[in-house]
Amino acid sequence: MPFQLTADFIEKIEQLIAKKDGSALRELLHELHFADIAEILEELKSDDALYLIKLLESDLTSDALMELDDDVREKILDRLSPKEIAKELEELDTDDAADIVAELDEEIQQEVIDKIKDEEHAADIVELLNYDDNTAGALMAKELVKVKETWSVAGCVREMRRQAENVTRVHSIYVTDKDGKLTGRLSLKDLLTASEKTKISEVFIPKVDYVTVHTENEEVARIMQKYDLEAIPVVDEEGILVGRITIDDIVDFIKDEAEKDYQLAAGISQDVEADDSVWELTRARLPWLVLGLIGGLGSVYIMQGFEEALERFPVLFFFTPLIAAMAGNVGVQSSAIIVQGLANDNVKGSLFNRLLKEVGLALINGIALGVLVIIFGFIAGQDQLVSITIAISMLSVIIVSALIGTFVPIILDRKGIDPAIATGPFITTSNDIFGIFLFFYISKIVLGF
Amino acid sequence: MPFQLTADFIEKIEQLIAKKDGSALRELLHELHFADIAEILEELKSDDALYLIKLLESDLTSDALMELDDDVREKILDRLSPKEIAKELEELDTDDAADIVAELDEEIQQEVIDKIKDEEHAADIVELLNYDDNTAGALMAKELVKVKETWSVAGCVREMRRQAENVTRVHSIYVTDKDGKLTGRLSLKDLLTASEKTKISEVFIPKVDYVTVHTENEEVARIMQKYDLEAIPVVDEEGILVGRITIDDIVDFIKDEAEKDYQLAAGISQDVEADDSVWELTRARLPWLVLGLIGGLGSVYIMQGFEEALERFPVLFFFTPLIAAMAGNVGVQSSAIIVQGLANDNVKGSLFNRLLKEVGLALINGIALGVLVIIFGFIAGQDQLVSITIAISMLSVIIVSALIGTFVPIILDRKGIDPAIATGPFITTSNDIFGIFLFFYISKIVLGF
Repeated sequence: MPFQLTADFIEKIEQLIAKKDGSALRELLHELHFADIAEILEELKSDDALYLIKLLESDLTSDALMELDDDVREKILDRLSPKEIAKELEELDTDDAADIVAELDEEIQQEVIDKIKDEEHAADIVELLNYDDNTAGALMAKELVKVKETWSVAGCVREMRRQAENVTRVHSIYVTDKDGKLTGRLSLKDLLTASEKTKISEVFIPKVDYVTVHTENEEVARIMQKYDLEAIPVVDEEGILVGRITIDDIVDFIKDEAEKDYQLAAGISQDVEADDSVWELTRARLPWLVLGLIGGLGSVYIMQGFEEALERFPVLFFFTPLIAAMAGNVGVQSSAIIVQGLANDNVKGSLFNRLLKEVGLALINGIALGVLVIIFGFIAGQDQLVSITIAISMLSVIIVSALIGTFVPIILDRKGIDPAIATGPFITTSNDIFGIFLFFYISKIVLGF
Repeated sequence: MPFQLTADFIEKIEQLIAKKDGSALRELLHELHFADIAEILEELKSDDALYLIKLLESDLTSDALMELDDDVREKILDRLSPKEIAKELEELDTDDAADIVAELDEEIQQEVIDKIKDEEHAADIVELLNYDDNTAGALMAKELVKVKETWSVAGCVREMRRQAENVTRVHSIYVTDKDGKLTGRLSLKDLLTASEKTKISEVFIPKVDYVTVHTENEEVARIMQKYDLEAIPVVDEEGILVGRITIDDIVDFIKDEAEKDYQLAAGISQDVEADDSVWELTRARLPWLVLGLIGGLGSVYIMQGFEEALERFPVLFFFTPLIAAMAGNVGVQSSAIIVQGLANDNVKGSLFNRLLKEVGLALINGIALGVLVIIFGFIAGQDQLVSITIAISMLSVIIVSALIGTFVPIILDRKGIDPAIATGPFITTSNDIFGIFLFFYISKIVLGF
C-alpha cells in the first residue's frame, strides 16, 4: 500500500517534464503525499525539480520542500524569486516557514517576509526567528487552538471551528485566563460529553505540562518522551501561551541527535550522507583521520624511545597493535556507556563508586584476556616471563583505558561540552598513545631492558 | 515546572514506608504523573517499591510499571500474585498489558489472564500475544475509535463518546464498512463542522495510511516518520481494522534502535546501562574484547612472518599502531555512513559507482595523510625511501579498509543480516589484520627485505 518510488516512475516524470506536459504531470502527482513528492524531487535533476515546484500547487510543494535534504532545498530556494518563496511560506506552519527563512541569505530574508500577504503570519515568523537556536522558542509553531476559561462549551466549539481552519491537527485545546496566561487544557473527550452551556472553567484540566521559550530542545524532548506527550504548550517569561511543539518535530530531533552521536563515535564530524559529494565526505572525515595520524606518529616517537628492547624482546613490538586495539576498544566501550547514560540521565551515584565499578570491570576483563595471552604464548613457544609481562601490562592498559573512557565524557559533560565527542577517534587515539607508553614502560620495569 | 526527583524526597518516602504511613504516602504521591512514580520506584529498595505498588491505586501503578527498566519490573512482578498482576493489567491498554504478560514465566501467564475480570480485554491481550515479535501486530493496541460509513454525524458522536471511555487519547477516528474493513478516516475538524444529520460516508476521507499485522516495526516507523503520523491503523489479511499503533511506541522504538546501533558500533552486544551490574556489563563487553584479542594475536603472527625486517627497517614496526589505527578509523567511518544510509534508505545507485566513489574518497584522504607522513619522516631524519614506502603502503591500506568498511555492511544487508554489527570491533579487528599484512607485504616488495 505505501507509495514505492520506482525508476520507471521517475523516467515517466522526466519525459513529461521534457515535453512540458503540465496537465499530465499535475494529473499524475496530485494524489501523492507531499513526502512522496519530496522523494521524487530528490531524484530529479535540479532544472526538472524547479519546473515541478513551479508547476504544482504551493500547498503541496511547500510541505515537500520541508522534507527535502538541506542541500537539495538550498539549491531550489536559490533559484526561486522572493515572491515565489513567500508563496510557499504562506502555506507552511510558522515553525517550518521560520526554518526556511533562516536558511535564506540574509539580504533577501526581509524581502521574502515583506512579500508574505498574511501580515499576522509574517509577524509570527519574524517572532520565531528571534529565539535562540536549540530552544523551544525556535522549535515551536504559533498555530494552536486556545480557549478562554470564561467561555461556555458552545462558544468554545464555535471558536474552535474558526481556529481549526489554521491548525493542521488539533492535538490539544489549551485554556488561558483573560490575560492569555496558560491555565490548563481541555480534553476532546470532556468537550464531547459536557453540555453546551457548561463553562470551560468547570470542565478544564488545570494540570498541564509546559515549557518556556528558553527551554532547550533536549529538555523538551526528554519531557515529551517521559510523559508520552503528543504536543506541549510553550509559554513566555510571563506565562503567556505563545506556541506549541508537536511530537513530529521531536521525533526528527531525536533521530538527528542519535545520528549525530553515531557519526561522532565513528569519527565523522559533519552531517553527511552516503550520497553526498566526495568533497563533503572528505571534509567530514579527513580531520579525524589526521587526528589518528598524529596519534600514530606519537606512538612511533614513543617506541623509538624503547628501541633498546628491539634486540632482546622483539616480540613486544609485535604486540603493539594488540595493545592499541585493546586500549581503543575498552575506551570506546566505556565512553559509549557513559555517553548514553548521561543522555538518559541515569549516571547516578558518586564518582568514587563509578571508579570502583570501572576498575572492577576492567580487572575481570583484563584478567580473562591476560590468561588468553599467556595460553597463546605457551602454544607459540614464547618465553613465559615475556608472556606474563605482556599480560600484566595489558591488564594495566585496560584499566587505564577504561578510566579514561569513563571520566573524559563525565568531565566534558560537567564543563558543558557534548560528551559524544569523547567517543570514537578522540578516545581511541589518546588511548593508543597512553596504552603503548604504559605497555613498554611496565615491560621495561619487569623485563629490565 | 517539571517534577525533579531529589534525594530528600526519596528519603521522606522511605521514612513514611518504614512507618507504614499509607495515607500520608497516598497524599504525597497522588498528584504525581505515573512516569514520576516510576522514577521513584527505581530509586527505592525492592521491598519498599513493592509496598508502594500494593498501596497505590492500580490506575497509577500499572502505567508506572510500564515505564520501569525491564530488570526492575521483573523483580517486582516476581513478587506479585497472579491476581495482583491481573489487576494491574486491567488498567493498561492492551498493547502494554500484552507486553507484560509476555515477560511473565510461561506457567503463570494463563493464570494471570484467567484472573482478568473484563473478558474482552483478556481476549484482546491473548490475540496480541499471538503475533510475531517485531511486527505491527505485536506493537498495536486494540483500543481505538471506529465508526461505520452508514452512520450519521450525530450517531457517530454518540458512539464516539461511548468508545472514548476506553481510549486514553483520541488520535483519529477510523471509518469501516459494514464488515469492519477499513475504508478511511474522519478528521475531528470535519466532525466539528458537519451538520448532525450528515452521513459519515459523505464527510470521511477515503485516503488513509495503514499497515498490516505482519508489517515489520522498522517499516511502521519509517512510514509514520515519513508521513508525520501520530497514529496508524492496523488491518489483518482481509483488510479488517484490528488495531492501531501510536507515535509514542514508535518514539520508543526509534530510540531503542538508535541505542542498539550505537552500542554495536562501540562493541557492546547487549542492552546494558551504566547502572547495570559488573557481571551484566562484562557479558556485554568481554566477547568483543576477545574478538579484538584474537585479531591482535593474528597481527602478532603476521609480524613474526616479517621478522627479517627487524634489523634493517625497525621503524616499520614502530608504525604498526598507526597503520592499524588508520585501517580501523577508515573502516569505521565507511561502515557508519553505509549503515546509516541503509537505515534511511538512501544508499542508491549501482555498486560500481559506489566503489568508484569510495576509492576516490580513500585516494584523497590517503594522499593527504601520506604527505603528512613524508613530512614527518623528513623532520625526524628518516630514510626518505622508507618514508615514501610507508606512505604508499598506508595509502593502499586506506583504500582496502574503505572498501571493506563499505561492502561488508552492504553484503550483510543483502543477506538479511543487520548491517550494524559490521561497525565497531568487527570491522576494526578485521581491518587491523588486513592492514598490517598489506603494510608489511608492500614494504617488503618496495624495500626488498
